[in-house]
Amino acid sequence: MTATAPSESWPQRPLPAAMIDALKTRFGERCSTARAVREQHGRDESPFDVPPPDAVLFAESAEEVAEAVALAAAHAVPVIPYGAGSSLEGHLLAVSGGLSIDVSRMNRVLRIEPDDLTVTVQPGVTRHQLNQELRHLGLFFPIDPGADASIGGMCATRASGTNAVRYGTMRENVLALQVVTAEGTRLRTGSRARKSSAGYDLTRLFVGSEGTLGVITEVTLKLYPLPESVSAAVCSFPSIDAAVRTTIAIIQLGVPIARCELLDPNAVRAVNRHDKLALPEQPMLLMEFHGSEAGVREQAEAVQLVAQEHGGADFAWAVTPEERTRLWTARHRAYFAGLAQRPGCRAVTTDCCVPISRLAECIGRAVADVEADGLPYFMVGHVGDGNFHIAYLVDPEQPAERERAEALNERLVRHAITLDGTCTGEHGIGLHKQGFLLEEAGADGVALMRRIKAALDPRQIMNPGKIFRA
Amino acid sequence: MTATAPSESWPQRPLPAAMIDALKTRFGERCSTARAVREQHGRDESPFDVPPPDAVLFAESAEEVAEAVALAAAHAVPVIPYGAGSSLEGHLLAVSGGLSIDVSRMNRVLRIEPDDLTVTVQPGVTRHQLNQELRHLGLFFPIDPGADASIGGMCATRASGTNAVRYGTMRENVLALQVVTAEGTRLRTGSRARKSSAGYDLTRLFVGSEGTLGVITEVTLKLYPLPESVSAAVCSFPSIDAAVRTTIAIIQLGVPIARCELLDPNAVRAVNRHDKLALPEQPMLLMEFHGSEAGVREQAEAVQLVAQEHGGADFAWAVTPEERTRLWTARHRAYFAGLAQRPGCRAVTTDCCVPISRLAECIGRAVADVEADGLPYFMVGHVGDGNFHIAYLVDPEQPAERERAEALNERLVRHAITLDGTCTGEHGIGLHKQGFLLEEAGADGVALMRRIKAALDPRQIMNPGKIFRA
Repeated sequence: MTATAPSESWPQRPLPAAMIDALKTRFGERCSTARAVREQHGRDESPFDVPPPDAVLFAESAEEVAEAVALAAAHAVPVIPYGAGSSLEGHLLAVSGGLSIDVSRMNRVLRIEPDDLTVTVQPGVTRHQLNQELRHLGLFFPIDPGADASIGGMCATRASGTNAVRYGTMRENVLALQVVTAEGTRLRTGSRARKSSAGYDLTRLFVGSEGTLGVITEVTLKLYPLPESVSAAVCSFPSIDAAVRTTIAIIQLGVPIARCELLDPNAVRAVNRHDKLALPEQPMLLMEFHGSEAGVREQAEAVQLVAQEHGGADFAWAVTPEERTRLWTARHRAYFAGLAQRPGCRAVTTDCCVPISRLAECIGRAVADVEADGLPYFMVGHVGDGNFHIAYLVDPEQPAERERAEALNERLVRHAITLDGTCTGEHGIGLHKQGFLLEEAGADGVALMRRIKAALDPRQIMNPGKIFRA
Repeated sequence: MTATAPSESWPQRPLPAAMIDALKTRFGERCSTARAVREQHGRDESPFDVPPPDAVLFAESAEEVAEAVALAAAHAVPVIPYGAGSSLEGHLLAVSGGLSIDVSRMNRVLRIEPDDLTVTVQPGVTRHQLNQELRHLGLFFPIDPGADASIGGMCATRASGTNAVRYGTMRENVLALQVVTAEGTRLRTGSRARKSSAGYDLTRLFVGSEGTLGVITEVTLKLYPLPESVSAAVCSFPSIDAAVRTTIAIIQLGVPIARCELLDPNAVRAVNRHDKLALPEQPMLLMEFHGSEAGVREQAEAVQLVAQEHGGADFAWAVTPEERTRLWTARHRAYFAGLAQRPGCRAVTTDCCVPISRLAECIGRAVADVEADGLPYFMVGHVGDGNFHIAYLVDPEQPAERERAEALNERLVRHAITLDGTCTGEHGIGLHKQGFLLEEAGADGVALMRRIKAALDPRQIMNPGKIFRA
């Protein structure tokens, strides 16, 4: 079984000229077949090199999305939803040709209900934009995958990031969706009620479906009050195991830590160079606490004690917003800082998530493997969730390096699955991890997913070739 | 459209003699066709009067469930999963005949992983039993629907209860399931990783599926550390609106309140009489705070201030475990205490859930309606979630009273749906609310659910007639 998607070509289903004509007549300039536009919509951070979509539609409303999907259904050609283009697993690639529907112009925050702590947005709203628009109300949306992703795309990949240990992932924070089905019908899943037992959980079915069941055209999210007090701290550890043991103890104590990120010495080194910081180049936890002033102080004291018991040292606080922003910006830039360590390289990034008791073991073996191999790498982890990313830095001119990186990832994923973990904590399956999904969910599990896909998208027009092949 | 399930009879698909013979040969005494056993498995708290299942199997393992389902599939006859028998919406009723699979003997806690805060149990484990077995580890499972329901049943109905405002519902707290599909295949959904983006969220699809997609044979749950400190308080308010406004302010302040229950004066009166308490017979909030000692004190102070601003009075604390247990036992007995107010009556219980900003409005109209009608009633609410239950007390000898109660519920549900709420926050659709589901999810939404059902259970053997009709 191969870790990456099969290299054989996908069946081609290009848009017929009649459909392009119909789109151009209906949408004018907003339907583009210009090569540059198509190529911009046919590329992402993933390594696959496939032809771009046949056309791109810049949709401005759910009605327009529904019209375009109905047209694609009539011609039985693929539709690929496109948000901010920041996904990592080949979700956007038009492997069978087709129409890319770009929803980035559907970027309005439609309704904020402060009393209910809910907001309804169009799918092209990005998380930075959303938090900008919420700030004056004392509210925020915590899910933070690093990139300034679109909310629609974050739903589609079931994204999470640094705040998930306290606030959950998109799975826990989407209340309702409006979707356009594969027939071009607009449908509402869920309501603004915070809980419901009304039939099958269609919302959770579409969250994480990677555009393969329909196009997300509206999202209702849970919001949170901005904490009265926030503080961040860094602490260095003699080993990754000590940092993970500290995290386990913090969570078992019931400390409601908001962020708990692990950086390996390579990541710390990269961040130091890139952001002119002077952090000790050892395994490091980067933490954040949210609450009342007294609550944050209490959390911090408890954590400091636990860290000391596990050999944590150089505990340093960032209390002012500027210091905090500097630290978290550095964390968020770790990916690019890490890439900059090897000019011209590309990263092959892992995304395993395991039960936290197995995390040190899982990371330990992966680090030993890559050290033995010799490829440059760095590691960052959402350690409170058991999720971590190793970035193997490969020279794109050296195909053998990519193969070595893929082999390392494959060993890591197999190990994670034996530890009752998953091959992807937050990036999704896309094209990359279809073989791993089969190992993780089993042939029967994937068969059941395929039956759902066939029931909801019988013509296989919605982002075909992603998660699994038809 | 009718609020209750249609009264016409369901298509009958009784177990053929050959299948009963096969079951008895294989399972011996554990397959029963005794009338008393069948009747005990064919009745619940719902008002429907249908014949009992044709046979009951007391299964002792997932393998046995799989065998029995495969046999039912071969004969194309219904299978009805049975846990503790505490569901309220007719989920257990053998409307088309068939085999009731009782999993109450599958009651072992299989694996507790304290470092990961996870536990894996068989579906017949009840929530009291689970918390008994966890206590010595300093852990607990918070979901508390009142009745000592089985964990499998709580998954099937997407249950919640008094702790959901802080800890979420079964939707948020189930990590993975083992299910037996409609073909009799055993399947694992999910892993012990706390988050995953690996394909469709099959776990969330089975949670809340009311036995219509398969039988749940194993459940992996999230656990929580027992809080260092717990305290409970009651506070009386001049109006329901004032109590709801207080709750909104508490949540907007970010106070992590663990329980926030509303009792109307009728419920308080019933509890006073039944449990010999002397609570002021006004709208009342019954609250609980979890955290560190200082944290609980801080939460309590913040809440007391907010309550006073909204006219709250008679703030009384229950700090000792005995006082707390007394209060919460009274709350949990409110249903039976309420029934005792009208000897011989039965209750028609509503389960709407609305955005909290609309809660006072929703309750207000429902109370005005029932006051105008004159039926006795009482109301309790998980007010932090926007979910509340009015119990209309009807004389079972007077069919007209039931009709009045159903008409009141129907008006209430319609109102809740216009307020962007749901007809069921935690009880499920079952037989009762199929008409409401259609109004709430729309014909297209229910059609999509039916397509999923048809894809996963093409012979329509899994708990047929529930959620929607074939």
